[in-house]
Amino acid sequence: MSNLAGSEAGGKPEKFRRQAIEVSAAQASILPYAHLLDCERVLLAEAQGRTLAENITAPHPYPHFRRSGMDGFAIISADTKGCSSEQPVELEVVDEIPCGSLPNVKLVSGTAARIMTGAKVPDEADAVIMFEMTKEIHKQDANHQKKKYIEIRREIEVGKNLTPVGLELALGDLILEKGRHIGTGEISVLATFGIHQVPVVRRPRVAVFSTGSELLSVEEPLQDGKIRNSNTYMLANQIREAGGEPYILHAIEDNLELARSKVAAAFAQYDIVVTTGGVSVGDFDIMADLVTGNDVQMLFNKVQMRPGSVTTAAVKDGKLLFALSGNPGACFVGFELFVRPAIQKMLGSSQLFLPEFSASLGKAYSKVNSFTRFVRGRLDYSDGRVVVYPAQLDESSVMITIKDSDVLIVIPPTTTGVHAGEMVKVLKLPRSTA
Amino acid sequence: MSNLAGSEAGGKPEKFRRQAIEVSAAQASILPYAHLLDCERVLLAEAQGRTLAENITAPHPYPHFRRSGMDGFAIISADTKGCSSEQPVELEVVDEIPCGSLPNVKLVSGTAARIMTGAKVPDEADAVIMFEMTKEIHKQDANHQKKKYIEIRREIEVGKNLTPVGLELALGDLILEKGRHIGTGEISVLATFGIHQVPVVRRPRVAVFSTGSELLSVEEPLQDGKIRNSNTYMLANQIREAGGEPYILHAIEDNLELARSKVAAAFAQYDIVVTTGGVSVGDFDIMADLVTGNDVQMLFNKVQMRPGSVTTAAVKDGKLLFALSGNPGACFVGFELFVRPAIQKMLGSSQLFLPEFSASLGKAYSKVNSFTRFVRGRLDYSDGRVVVYPAQLDESSVMITIKDSDVLIVIPPTTTGVHAGEMVKVLKLPRSTA
Repeated sequence: MSNLAGSEAGGKPEKFRRQAIEVSAAQASILPYAHLLDCERVLLAEAQGRTLAENITAPHPYPHFRRSGMDGFAIISADTKGCSSEQPVELEVVDEIPCGSLPNVKLVSGTAARIMTGAKVPDEADAVIMFEMTKEIHKQDANHQKKKYIEIRREIEVGKNLTPVGLELALGDLILEKGRHIGTGEISVLATFGIHQVPVVRRPRVAVFSTGSELLSVEEPLQDGKIRNSNTYMLANQIREAGGEPYILHAIEDNLELARSKVAAAFAQYDIVVTTGGVSVGDFDIMADLVTGNDVQMLFNKVQMRPGSVTTAAVKDGKLLFALSGNPGACFVGFELFVRPAIQKMLGSSQLFLPEFSASLGKAYSKVNSFTRFVRGRLDYSDGRVVVYPAQLDESSVMITIKDSDVLIVIPPTTTGVHAGEMVKVLKLPRSTA
Repeated sequence: MSNLAGSEAGGKPEKFRRQAIEVSAAQASILPYAHLLDCERVLLAEAQGRTLAENITAPHPYPHFRRSGMDGFAIISADTKGCSSEQPVELEVVDEIPCGSLPNVKLVSGTAARIMTGAKVPDEADAVIMFEMTKEIHKQDANHQKKKYIEIRREIEVGKNLTPVGLELALGDLILEKGRHIGTGEISVLATFGIHQVPVVRRPRVAVFSTGSELLSVEEPLQDGKIRNSNTYMLANQIREAGGEPYILHAIEDNLELARSKVAAAFAQYDIVVTTGGVSVGDFDIMADLVTGNDVQMLFNKVQMRPGSVTTAAVKDGKLLFALSGNPGACFVGFELFVRPAIQKMLGSSQLFLPEFSASLGKAYSKVNSFTRFVRGRLDYSDGRVVVYPAQLDESSVMITIKDSDVLIVIPPTTTGVHAGEMVKVLKLPRSTA
């Protein structure tokens, strides 16, 4: 092969003319092609991390019976009217109600039922007195039958220690909205209402290709001039965190026809196709060619952002193709800003974009740029303030600081940098733990 | 069965005398029994969410070759000394270096190599000039051979657009500490260094029992006076989030001997045993009996906290047993304060407890208590301030607000409540998403 191969074209061909659009416009252009996927039912034990496909309404009030909030005695509160240490009242204990059991005896004035926390209060009772506030007295009646009484020395108000039906939820209340992510609290609600088959949205199947013959697989020994294919592993993780199912496909070498056929095959099988690498403005770039065919509609091929300005999105066969940068920092950011919202929309999620809030910049950021920068950073709460610290190394090509970042700090176009203490917009990154 | 069954004992027996200890003392009493588990190796693609068992040091510098940061030409910077628009310099293009390839030609003064972003810079070059800052010129030499030159019109400094070896990491640098949770950034690092078999700590196997005959399985139709067994599903979720493997065992009915034998069998098979329910101070409580055997060492059976004051921890056969409240709110909090740290310690995690910070209380909390309260709440960032809002319903028995909470607000013992705007300590709950 000639050392000058490819140079005959005389500089950069037409395909590299790119019009940079704003991040918000780029995001908006994607969403119409991210269609809600089907509903499927999974067992409650497997619902963690999924997205609800339907609104869930309460099939019964909760609590569904009048529940004792204390270990004690169910009573008719009027029986304690006017009683005191000087004038205690005695009630005969005629029943005992453990959790899960029903009352056996109808209470009448002058009687009480021993009751456990969480047990059903007899219909006739209207209060529960704490065990510790009573004194047991044993007597024998005229027929020498042992009888148990409790002595009460204070008035008990109606409703005391008694959780009414529907305190938490009434029949038909909306309990979980569709689009909600299913975590611990949601599981608890679903179990409480016996929803053991949970309607969830099918996870988008996301194919990941890396491109570029410089890539070694992670198992290969290092070679001079080559790097390992770390982005696909990183993307697989990001896809799972976003609620998708990643499928790592073989790396595409720098060959346009091969790339075309591999990508076409992927569209038949997956919901989204993501590539990483091969989008930089080099003579050997093939992704630019890939999105210029007649059957492909390009949405954008340059975005007013750093890193990741050459991020590309296109539509083929009604499905989204994202061509992310091969630089790890740019690939990471490109996924979170563009692929995540597409996945979330396909899941019907109520939160398409990374959560956004404002924070104080903990350390000056001095780089200037005509594009908005999405700078990796670390979130810190000190004394009630939200402070963010930009990573020391935030170049597009830098991988090492991704692991220490929990936010992206949004630095608008600036010719002066941003001072410490200024307020900045912050996007919260997903983390599988706190 | 007599309506008065169990009442012959005449009030509450000895076993219910409980000494409440402080939360921190309770936590400290558990940790000596939470032993680090074995290391196992998993494939990189399966390492997400695991905890690193060993320190990882860089097996090579990163980058491991001098990398071009631009699409352009590798040059010897001294060749541009003194050049300008008036006095441009011409360099002959003698090589072309795509990503992943090695230089073919040794550069000498007066020559340059076309180079792509990410490719290896020839050893003789000390800078890269951007493609856009050059002009190509084609000439024929004396033998009518076509030759390509670039014209340069400004001085280029040494090191320009050239990432030196080891910029991110030097050989032997500590890159990931043991005990670290493996997320997206960590995966990226591991892949970059070719660590395709990742040393992780085995997940603790955590058995979950529910107790109490009031419990219906989630599949059963509702019955009067009974509730569904939602806590075990909630706990399974919490266990997974904490890094453990949950094993849901059958509910234990209110029978001491049956409970004893079931729990003993669980200790042989699992690393931790958790029960929920049966710890309230009722006549039918069996958990109290369960932790009073000769072979069981009780660590605590009452904690100065609300909810969950009757949380119990014990050690049997060197393994931890946690008896959590059957009330969903108390069960939830008891897990996060006591079981989570045990799991994290067994994983060798660097973060045993829920992350803690201070925040401003967004709404007055008026309940008084002699014990510290752990109140479910919602975190809000507004204008750079961290504000927390207590849930409307935070009773021990209330389940519905767990799903809307991302923090526990720590309300110290108070006789007056806490006013809006006061600073409070906050514990961040794990959430599988942001």
